[in-house]
Amino acid sequence: MYGQYLEQVQQQKPLVHCITNYVTVNDCANIVLACGASPIMADEAKEVEDITSICNSLVINIGTLNERTVAAMVKAGKRANALGHPVILDPVGAGASALRTETVFQLLREVKFTAIRGNISEIKTVAMGSGTTKGVDADVADEINEQTLPEVLQFARRLAEETGAVIIITGKQDLLTDGVHSCLISNGHAMMSRITGSGCMLTCLLGAYLAANKTNLFAACAAAVAEMGLAGEMAYQPNCGTLTFRTRLLDAVSTMTGNMLDGGAKIEAL
Amino acid sequence: MYGQYLEQVQQQKPLVHCITNYVTVNDCANIVLACGASPIMADEAKEVEDITSICNSLVINIGTLNERTVAAMVKAGKRANALGHPVILDPVGAGASALRTETVFQLLREVKFTAIRGNISEIKTVAMGSGTTKGVDADVADEINEQTLPEVLQFARRLAEETGAVIIITGKQDLLTDGVHSCLISNGHAMMSRITGSGCMLTCLLGAYLAANKTNLFAACAAAVAEMGLAGEMAYQPNCGTLTFRTRLLDAVSTMTGNMLDGGAKIEAL
Amino acid sequence: MYGQYLEQVQQQKPLVHCITNYVTVNDCANIVLACGASPIMADEAKEVEDITSICNSLVINIGTLNERTVAAMVKAGKRANALGHPVILDPVGAGASALRTETVFQLLREVKFTAIRGNISEIKTVAMGSGTTKGVDADVADEINEQTLPEVLQFARRLAEETGAVIIITGKQDLLTDGVHSCLISNGHAMMSRITGSGCMLTCLLGAYLAANKTNLFAACAAAVAEMGLAGEMAYQPNCGTLTFRTRLLDAVSTMTGNMLDGGAKIEAL
Repeated sequence: MYGQYLEQVQQQKPLVHCITNYVTVNDCANIVLACGASPIMADEAKEVEDITSICNSLVINIGTLNERTVAAMVKAGKRANALGHPVILDPVGAGASALRTETVFQLLREVKFTAIRGNISEIKTVAMGSGTTKGVDADVADEINEQTLPEVLQFARRLAEETGAVIIITGKQDLLTDGVHSCLISNGHAMMSRITGSGCMLTCLLGAYLAANKTNLFAACAAAVAEMGLAGEMAYQPNCGTLTFRTRLLDAVSTMTGNMLDGGAKIEAL
Repeated sequence: MYGQYLEQVQQQKPLVHCITNYVTVNDCANIVLACGASPIMADEAKEVEDITSICNSLVINIGTLNERTVAAMVKAGKRANALGHPVILDPVGAGASALRTETVFQLLREVKFTAIRGNISEIKTVAMGSGTTKGVDADVADEINEQTLPEVLQFARRLAEETGAVIIITGKQDLLTDGVHSCLISNGHAMMSRITGSGCMLTCLLGAYLAANKTNLFAACAAAVAEMGLAGEMAYQPNCGTLTFRTRLLDAVSTMTGNMLDGGAKIEAL
Repeated sequence: MYGQYLEQVQQQKPLVHCITNYVTVNDCANIVLACGASPIMADEAKEVEDITSICNSLVINIGTLNERTVAAMVKAGKRANALGHPVILDPVGAGASALRTETVFQLLREVKFTAIRGNISEIKTVAMGSGTTKGVDADVADEINEQTLPEVLQFARRLAEETGAVIIITGKQDLLTDGVHSCLISNGHAMMSRITGSGCMLTCLLGAYLAANKTNLFAACAAAVAEMGLAGEMAYQPNCGTLTFRTRLLDAVSTMTGNMLDGGAKIEAL
């Protein structure tokens, strides 16, 4: 069932415009190619409107933001909104510096996002920017587990309603909600946190899936998150080093089929 | 016969100054090292003249251009021209944004290039900047095949004459011409288009070959293009994932000898 | 004995703030993760003070410096000094351009470094900035071997005294001194110079080790240098290509234990 969203990516081969950080940008470009789509990396304000206009979706990742690129993010985001393209936000390190937090708040004011993916800490910072996190909310758990799931889910649903975005909180388990539908995804492997870029790559994968599945946004997000986790499971070997794991992770994405994703996805509706 | 140009690289170990994009820059540095040369990446206008002066060739790649780096490209290009260093242009995405197209036109006006490498679409944009593409020319085919070869060749020859550069159009087959000599190269593997950086890496390989073979520019370009394609053929394995393919591609370049290149090059004079 | 410094990294999992070049930044982030620490890459002047404040050490690498990032280096360095965090300098290409040389001099004036790592040529440029290199000193040998060791050691000791930093000169053999203690490290493999980033990665590894071993700075530096070299020895296989070597190098760091480092380190006190 979820494999069809991957098959759409492979058939439509969408173009994904990525404004992303220079740490993991190569892995991001390669994962977009691996899943069957094509990446264009461009972050100069003078050209981002042209570039995003020929693409099918836009990914904004603030991992190594600077003044020049923040201006480009806003411009590209507005144009992508005007064109009806899916726009995905990865608020890397939101909360770690005033600049990151303020940039996230600015982006939330000026751009409408289709999906927002981060860890629980980053998503809590996003929630403050959306006006969601007040009083009790600020105390939402820092980890998703059986005990904390109900409160994190409630928090994420409210943020989804306020932003209109699919909220994707990744961690040991991944929680997704669009305010109406919600699910918990249990794919993945601990080695994914021992390489840089697992999160950034997933966000770019979301860019590809959403571009190719504009009428099934929530299910497409779930499929992308499950594919990334399943690729991590397939990549792991006992005693394997971290860079071999990275190679095998991208290899797994590049050889994944819809059937394999259907067979391996661990998605539980909430 | 073509292997000698690789051997010159390995013996002379030229320094290649690369002003290139941050997506594939690591692969570019590694391929320059793999073929036996040394890379220096530097894109700050305040230092590019110093840097290019201690190098043997200059590669300009506009893949993630911005105002700051375009100024550096022009400065470095002029200095390299004054010093008689080979200068190679990779007009990544020319035609995809006004900024890229105008930057290519500016570079063509201010810098003399020894070689220009791109896909057919990018090279057509280059031709507009050189004043070559008018009327009928704008209709040159979008792909090189048996039918279209004569017209693409004629178009490329005219561009070579107007720019004084070796024109290298890469695709399933690669067409090279300096206006006088022309050839078609049939090395390569389809997997090369499933990773990011195949084109950027080839352009940097051209930088190494031209630096070490300044009296045989056309033949050196052909040898570099053939080596890249041959490495792709050697890298491929059935069912291999894309990142394993990338690793094996660079491994193949790093272990290639002149004899291997002579044995595997598929270069047909036109 | 040296393995304990690695174990401290693995137990404390320090955060390392890296302002580094875009060529090898991905490898740098991955090696910091591989050794058990966590990297944060951030180079915007507006946020580097915030970022460095939540970290445990700071690495400054000038490999692809520009005006914007030099300002960030100075700001971050001052804040890290104020907080008592170890600060490590990698003067990539010092001497290759006036901008690089002047930037190194500026950094030496404005920031106090805990360790400085470079090849002999780069370290000689550093010495000119510290006022160390005058007259005879400018003639210090360009390579460390049995003949030149006494003079290079004397030169390095003086630089260590003047800067207060552990001086780390890497090459076929690596020379370390804090002015009082000195050692020669003979780990490593020639393949390390056939990939980009061996030096940059080591500097980031030093960032991790120093953050976790603040009361044993000299010994921690020696342990980090030995681990990098030992990983190179473990990574090598006959006929292996350069990108496979890079993968295996990072794999070796990610699976290294204190016992393995104790068993393989070749550190000779001078």
